[in-house]
Amino acid sequence: MAYIAPLARLIEHFRALPGIGAKTAVRLAYHVLDMKESDARALASAILAAKEKIGFCSICCDIADHDPCAICSAESRDHSVICVVEQPQDVQAMERMRNFKGVYHVLHGALSPLDGVGPSDIRLKELLARLKDDTVKEVIMATNPNVEGEATAMYIAKLLKPMGIKVTRIAQGLSIGGDLEYADEMTLSKAMENRREI
Amino acid sequence: MAYIAPLARLIEHFRALPGIGAKTAVRLAYHVLDMKESDARALASAILAAKEKIGFCSICCDIADHDPCAICSAESRDHSVICVVEQPQDVQAMERMRNFKGVYHVLHGALSPLDGVGPSDIRLKELLARLKDDTVKEVIMATNPNVEGEATAMYIAKLLKPMGIKVTRIAQGLSIGGDLEYADEMTLSKAMENRREI
Repeated sequence: MAYIAPLARLIEHFRALPGIGAKTAVRLAYHVLDMKESDARALASAILAAKEKIGFCSICCDIADHDPCAICSAESRDHSVICVVEQPQDVQAMERMRNFKGVYHVLHGALSPLDGVGPSDIRLKELLARLKDDTVKEVIMATNPNVEGEATAMYIAKLLKPMGIKVTRIAQGLSIGGDLEYADEMTLSKAMENRREI
Repeated sequence: MAYIAPLARLIEHFRALPGIGAKTAVRLAYHVLDMKESDARALASAILAAKEKIGFCSICCDIADHDPCAICSAESRDHSVICVVEQPQDVQAMERMRNFKGVYHVLHGALSPLDGVGPSDIRLKELLARLKDDTVKEVIMATNPNVEGEATAMYIAKLLKPMGIKVTRIAQGLSIGGDLEYADEMTLSKAMENRREI
């Protein structure tokens, strides 16, 4: 027996979300039927509100419900250091660390010629615009430690070096609390390469 | 850094869904921000439509977008055999089997005195109402094979026996394709108890 239409449609929508398999989608849909009317309405309006109220900061391109965003408009932050990341989620990860006092720039992607993502497909123009006056002294490339992230970091570094801006890359090495035995070769070779005198 | 308010609210709503942990809720919320406006609207309206358009069949108490539901109004079904289940999901499971031609009754729960669920908290009155004329010849108790489901089956059987209606219980035993070595004691003892001559 097929599911009744409104239920089938809801299952299909849940199924389209990342990491939600067929069984979870069914369970979620039945859960919605069991929810109080007011809770279901609140869920639907939270989805709509997130889309309507969240835009992008015109300075750092992070998601924001005010423009400029809280970080870009904070006087307590060091506006001479920009940490460049791929995604808004990465800003959250950096902020959890609690000891970076600079500002961010969100590229919304990484260069990936194979996937057809070139320099004009990420928020690079917006980054360059921020470097026109002499405020920025250092750009920290905190793109992901994978092929695309690495290529993006190198590309941007080459672009900024002639402008006399210091460009750095976050370190790669063993995870704290990790186990040398289980580290992959790439990580281990980076850890050796980046060794420091103690 | 806390999430911006509309995002935090969305994460919280996803977090309240069953089987959605903190990390999945965050991933889903960011996914909604990345969705096309029209897709997000479609998701929200699917949630609302499911709540608005789905009610209960006045005969079998299954979820339905028409009353009576498709099964209760089908002439091809055998209306003299009622299969009693706990949840709407159980009707789907039975229908996947494809060889039950009777009709259903959904209790929306099982008796559980410890949780304060008594006979008036499940759709028992509605089941009894269906047995008033002489149409129904057999009631199959297909409640779950656990303490509550068993107690519910026994309670209803005692209630119906004096009415001259045949009450049966779906069999319990080893799962097809299962491994005797890994069967739990309860299942194994039921399987022994219900053995048949071959």
